Amino acid sequence: MTSVYLDNNATTRTDPAVVAAMLPYFTEQFGNASSMHAFGAEVGTALAKARKQLQALIGAEFDHEIVYTSGGTESDNAAILSALETQTGRDEIITSAVEHPAILTLVAHLEKSRGIKVHVIGVDARGHLDMEAYRKALGPKTAIVSIMWANNETGTIFPVEQLAELAHEAGALFHTDAVQAVGKIAINLAESEIDMLSLSGHKLHGPKGIGALYVRKGTRFRPIIRGGHQERGRRGGTENAPGIIGLGAAAELAMQHMEDENTRVAALRDRLEKGLLQRIGNSFVTGDPDNRLPNTANIAFEYIEGEAILLLMNRDGIAASSGSACTSGSLEPSHVLRAMNVPYTAAHGAIRFSFSRENGDADVDHVLDAMPPIIERLREMSPFWRERDVRTEAFNPTYA
Amino acid sequence: MTSVYLDNNATTRTDPAVVAAMLPYFTEQFGNASSMHAFGAEVGTALAKARKQLQALIGAEFDHEIVYTSGGTESDNAAILSALETQTGRDEIITSAVEHPAILTLVAHLEKSRGIKVHVIGVDARGHLDMEAYRKALGPKTAIVSIMWANNETGTIFPVEQLAELAHEAGALFHTDAVQAVGKIAINLAESEIDMLSLSGHKLHGPKGIGALYVRKGTRFRPIIRGGHQERGRRGGTENAPGIIGLGAAAELAMQHMEDENTRVAALRDRLEKGLLQRIGNSFVTGDPDNRLPNTANIAFEYIEGEAILLLMNRDGIAASSGSACTSGSLEPSHVLRAMNVPYTAAHGAIRFSFSRENGDADVDHVLDAMPPIIERLREMSPFWRERDVRTEAFNPTYA
Ligand SMILES: Cc1ncc(COP(=O)(O)O)c(C=O)c1O
Ligand SMILES: Cc1ncc(COP(=O)(O)O)c(C=O)c1O
Repeated sequence: MTSVYLDNNATTRTDPAVVAAMLPYFTEQFGNASSMHAFGAEVGTALAKARKQLQALIGAEFDHEIVYTSGGTESDNAAILSALETQTGRDEIITSAVEHPAILTLVAHLEKSRGIKVHVIGVDARGHLDMEAYRKALGPKTAIVSIMWANNETGTIFPVEQLAELAHEAGALFHTDAVQAVGKIAINLAESEIDMLSLSGHKLHGPKGIGALYVRKGTRFRPIIRGGHQERGRRGGTENAPGIIGLGAAAELAMQHMEDENTRVAALRDRLEKGLLQRIGNSFVTGDPDNRLPNTANIAFEYIEGEAILLLMNRDGIAASSGSACTSGSLEPSHVLRAMNVPYTAAHGAIRFSFSRENGDADVDHVLDAMPPIIERLREMSPFWRERDVRTEAFNPTYA
Repeated sequence: MTSVYLDNNATTRTDPAVVAAMLPYFTEQFGNASSMHAFGAEVGTALAKARKQLQALIGAEFDHEIVYTSGGTESDNAAILSALETQTGRDEIITSAVEHPAILTLVAHLEKSRGIKVHVIGVDARGHLDMEAYRKALGPKTAIVSIMWANNETGTIFPVEQLAELAHEAGALFHTDAVQAVGKIAINLAESEIDMLSLSGHKLHGPKGIGALYVRKGTRFRPIIRGGHQERGRRGGTENAPGIIGLGAAAELAMQHMEDENTRVAALRDRLEKGLLQRIGNSFVTGDPDNRLPNTANIAFEYIEGEAILLLMNRDGIAASSGSACTSGSLEPSHVLRAMNVPYTAAHGAIRFSFSRENGDADVDHVLDAMPPIIERLREMSPFWRERDVRTEAFNPTYA
């Protein structure tokens, strides 16, 4: 059966070259990186190289600005919790309504358990931050701002460099969850004012279980996991050498393919999107088509259920996602689409197609053939479709 | 050159069978375990199996008592921090002087930053806990006791089941860092009163970057890493599927080899130990030779420097360790040996030989040949050796 994987924002296939780079560090150079013997002799060198590779991808000035973690969620948690400890006299957090649960679940907990004031800034129909509300929320009590670089569901890109400058004017730290941005768009931290940045290996064809938190030189930092002296005392625990080395290899591949992502992959995405909108009525793009990740298309098919669509797509060999994989399992529509005020009848039927460099034209052709009958069939069974009010149709045709 | 790896308490070689079990989950079944499509279809099944394999190894009653983490250090941190939040009205911690930095660094920080009272219970010359001090420290303010199952440097085993019962009598939670015990000795949590237990994949021929915290059913738990609903809301972040599956495979192998560890490996260890003590004067075993892990021998060679010994051993192709790998790099003798009151002249020259099921007789033969000239050569150069006071020699001949 044809297999089309368009769920790369959930996770990517580990590149076989990445696996090959990791393999010797399981069974040959398996020594503890801190040990002084031959079984670990090459590990130190390989770790240093991997750090440089990741540094290059994010344009960090110093390689020791990278703190390895177990993934994006740990990085996000570490950034926020550190800021609350180092920013004495400041106990407010600013974030957006469309962040990943790795941020939103944490700040909700901090609000409830510690009385931290959390400003959750809203977004408009295209997913852009309410800048006025952001400016207003900033103040002498703001410990940290955490706004994502790009949204995982819609791909909408936030002006994080500018947001960081505004945060600094108020004396706040600025963190960005760049889990979806790193490897997909150019990032140059040295030339920004961003203090901390989270990334995750498995979103860029690296392995699962490894991530990093960039902490700008000079930014005070308090670890959430304490133990040995690893990562210059900023994160305890035996180094995950295969993971770090795999992430380095993935970073290097991402740099090599970056242009490809921005042109060939975006062209594939656009062809899929236009084709679907032409073939299927009562469908529209959510987010901002002019300012988003090159790999992401989030399309709402009105009056049907995303989970049902995915099920039929799966029968046709197509993998995609309805909202974030982390919240699937619940039947609530995605918090991201709700924050954008996408009507329930549409948000319920939103499908995220997320490409990677591994996709090709045949994938797009297959999806373009498969989707119309799927949508038609589900709508035939949908009471909402039959009873729809034609006057409210095509509510948000952002993609003309 | 001969290669002899006797540093298995620092880290183990990932078993090739473990790597083989992991491989399909990097490039074939790479889907997010929470996704509902073919690319992740088998992941859920594989994860469920891996959980059962680990459950069997630690004798847990329920498989959902396992919370996957990134390693032993995270598990240790999570256990202690959770207890401080759930044990309302209790703000004291009891631990031992010979714990790993994953515990000691954390509790020192909590004492300094939060005013938590920490009782650090001492040990005797063989590394056994001062039971009287332990009983005295327990009280209505004790939130949690954290005592390791087996020490990483000496292998000394603690009576954790009994310590857990005493902790419960005082209403305290009991956590054990079993990072060195799991996979080496039989563990049956269902029949104990232990509330939480930490383990780490790379210490039992599993991969680095994966570990687990056992949390007994009914024990209240607060996560340190919040995000998605993974691990029943107890640990956010995309599941490290290859890591979890690798740990499961490692657990199953450990069970199969357990007897081997307890007999063949212990015999190898004993032959090495006896042979070294016979061949080399002014040397003795630290810890309790009658009550320790079957794979560990910690031998102090008086009047010389451990780091120098390791360097010459490395030239002869032998990997071992002086103290914990996590603290190497400093020239202070190990905190474990200091807590046991091993004199500095001996503690400085302590070498830990730690075996695994991958070692054989040839390894022992090689080390028995190589060590005497190494020690002799270093002693010839040592001013302490020349000026030693023969009256204090053989201070602690625990191994007669
Ligand atoms: C007793 C003990 N506890 C905790 C750890 C930390 O485990 P990890 O390095 O997997 O975080 C180790 C090993 O380094 C250990 O020996
Ligand atoms: C925007 C964003 N942040 C954070 C995460 C969490 O990353 P991880 O699953 O590696 O912990 C994800 C993905 O799940 C994400 O898309």
